[in-house]
Amino acid sequence: MERRLLIIEDSKEDYAAILRALDCRADEVQISHSTDGDGALETLTDLATAGKIGKLPQIIVLDLNLPGTGGRDILVELKRDALLKIIPVVVLTTSTNPRDIADCYRNGVNGYCVKGGDRTTFVETMQAFKRFWLQAALLPNRADER
Amino acid sequence: MERRLLIIEDSKEDYAAILRALDCRADEVQISHSTDGDGALETLTDLATAGKIGKLPQIIVLDLNLPGTGGRDILVELKRDALLKIIPVVVLTTSTNPRDIADCYRNGVNGYCVKGGDRTTFVETMQAFKRFWLQAALLPNRADER
Repeated sequence: MERRLLIIEDSKEDYAAILRALDCRADEVQISHSTDGDGALETLTDLATAGKIGKLPQIIVLDLNLPGTGGRDILVELKRDALLKIIPVVVLTTSTNPRDIADCYRNGVNGYCVKGGDRTTFVETMQAFKRFWLQAALLPNRADER
Repeated sequence: MERRLLIIEDSKEDYAAILRALDCRADEVQISHSTDGDGALETLTDLATAGKIGKLPQIIVLDLNLPGTGGRDILVELKRDALLKIIPVVVLTTSTNPRDIADCYRNGVNGYCVKGGDRTTFVETMQAFKRFWLQAALLPNRADER
């Protein structure tokens, strides 16, 4: 079962590290990448508005520190949108600030992980993400399912 | 790091199976159990209103088919409450109905898993839940963090 994952991450190094740590086969997950939140939000909104639901990601990994509109506000926009709010969003950030954690959960984030720590811890985090979100959990297939 | 998990599940057999599959040490997670959603919601609301934030669970596992108010409505109530909405809720149900999946995500569920399937698949699901939610993810510590 292929799953569609969108990673919103401005750092090319971090994006490469995420891919390595996830270690996904192409037939289990289709990964797309955006380096900026505003662009990602615009693309997602266009796809949803045009009814191209099968092109929408089924899960989003979101960095908090992004150029332009930051990840905190991108999260709010995604969860405010009637069509896009259904897509699970997992924040992956260096911030362990309790206020960021609380604000993200209050604003509807589906999960919150840190990308700090040593390489082993980071791989464990991404493997835990993969096992739950890309294998165990049931994800919405169609944003307009009713 | 101890985490506080509340399991809302009316079936004693299913609850016992969840505990066996999670296989948690007492020092890594403090588990409480409720067999009915209305009772759990009342207790959580009382704790939150009384400011006993340290007594609130940091994560909730919620069955959908419950006596009295069902899990679908309990989810809506939890995510409508200004204090309780911060607590991640993972649905664990036998339903694989796409409408249930879509409705739960639309109503703010943090994750959705099935408890059907054979024993091996169920253990894998609960271990994936444990690795992500009880080990990797950062959870809100205080529902009133601002």
